[in-house]
Amino acid sequence: MSDRILSMNLATTRGAWGFAEAVDGCLRLGVTAISPWRDQVAAIGLDEAANIVRSNGLRVTGLCRGGMFPADSAESRQKNIEDNLRAIDEAAALGADCLVLVVGGLPGSSKDIAGARQMVADGIAAMLPHARASGVPLAIEPLHPMYAADRACVNTIDQALDICAELGDGVGVAIDVYHVWWDPNLAAAIARAGREKRILAHHICDWLVPTTDLLLDRGMMGDGVIDLKAIRAMIEAAGYHGPQEVEIFSRDNWWKRPGDEVVRTCVERFETVC
Amino acid sequence: MSDRILSMNLATTRGAWGFAEAVDGCLRLGVTAISPWRDQVAAIGLDEAANIVRSNGLRVTGLCRGGMFPADSAESRQKNIEDNLRAIDEAAALGADCLVLVVGGLPGSSKDIAGARQMVADGIAAMLPHARASGVPLAIEPLHPMYAADRACVNTIDQALDICAELGDGVGVAIDVYHVWWDPNLAAAIARAGREKRILAHHICDWLVPTTDLLLDRGMMGDGVIDLKAIRAMIEAAGYHGPQEVEIFSRDNWWKRPGDEVVRTCVERFETVC
Repeated sequence: MSDRILSMNLATTRGAWGFAEAVDGCLRLGVTAISPWRDQVAAIGLDEAANIVRSNGLRVTGLCRGGMFPADSAESRQKNIEDNLRAIDEAAALGADCLVLVVGGLPGSSKDIAGARQMVADGIAAMLPHARASGVPLAIEPLHPMYAADRACVNTIDQALDICAELGDGVGVAIDVYHVWWDPNLAAAIARAGREKRILAHHICDWLVPTTDLLLDRGMMGDGVIDLKAIRAMIEAAGYHGPQEVEIFSRDNWWKRPGDEVVRTCVERFETVC
Repeated sequence: MSDRILSMNLATTRGAWGFAEAVDGCLRLGVTAISPWRDQVAAIGLDEAANIVRSNGLRVTGLCRGGMFPADSAESRQKNIEDNLRAIDEAAALGADCLVLVVGGLPGSSKDIAGARQMVADGIAAMLPHARASGVPLAIEPLHPMYAADRACVNTIDQALDICAELGDGVGVAIDVYHVWWDPNLAAAIARAGREKRILAHHICDWLVPTTDLLLDRGMMGDGVIDLKAIRAMIEAAGYHGPQEVEIFSRDNWWKRPGDEVVRTCVERFETVC
């Protein structure tokens, strides 16, 4: 491996491992950076998770995830913000590089996507003072447009950068190749993200052809059509040289395999095709 | 029904009807505009299809479809262009308002989406003289980004308009709500399409939550989350007042129902939610 850093998003080994097993497996295979999910941290307990991180000198490249801001009542939106404030505390306790935000889609039976997008900007604004005070950068993750209705109504890097520009310091973008590889404006958007000092994370996996499930059929790097090296070159040219984090949701393939095989494959592919 | 015009894309009744049955069914329910697919026309024969169109005074709002330009050899790309030239002749014989282009995705095992996009622009340029001479406008249909790999690497209205600007007269865009509803830049892109006189077609259906298949799970208007009236207002404000064409691929629902029920439902929803 070069001086590039591979981080394992622990969703990738979700089929095989909880938090502690995943840390053991990663260390066994030479991976010293992770990005856990809140439910995985909660299952072992935040204090114990933070202990494991510290005692092993792990880098936590992100905590997944905050967000899910839109809701059809002010009370529900406030509850969502309160949950996001707890997520900031968890990210701080783990020493995470950022809190990843999957911002949420249309609330209830709404068809008002512009309204949902405003709820997202308002929600991030509401949590931002606590994030700044806690030293936890917020990483807006634009999700693929196929998730606009039910998962994230922020769907391009440019759109996320516009929100960042409105909100000021302490917020940036997580660039996941799966969500943005198709964007005709990708090169310019990544360059802009660099100029505006907003790149907080770089997630990798692959787009399979065919894709059989909208959510749970992501591919291992090299098994799909994304030109991972070309996108890495754009991100590096934009000034980001941080970890590449492998995040693969794969219900019928990688989640059914032993954790060691999954991590070993990620390490191999990271060296050859990323 | 107001003076708005409903057109039935004959994919919508594909489960029940061929070309002639679909025309009978549409006329029975007061629909006098259609948009057939080339395989449906071929099955009955081009001359017979054109006869049915003329003798019934039908409007043909489009022929589906040309396109599919990228290929991994110059010879294959040339074959694709020749097939597109035949599609222009078929559209002319039917008196279609336009030939709809689904431009194609990545050729072979390529990961070069910029290269595929150039093949698309080159392919349209190659067929454009014949289209102009035949009086058949070419309608580039930007497809949802989830089809970028295997179906169409033109994925936003703005991207299609950039291609149009490069190519000159005789080419425009088909705006299908299913493909573009999520676009953060939708209102501006539609306004631009109007200013540049490029709007050739307006397709409608709905985005279901959840969507269970990437291709064949489109919804009936009103059953999903797309704000159809809001998008129609954008399109009308941009100066387009032509037909709204219903195009629903629905393997497990609408394609299993009797054609009369499908068309009747389209007519009802057109009047109430579109």
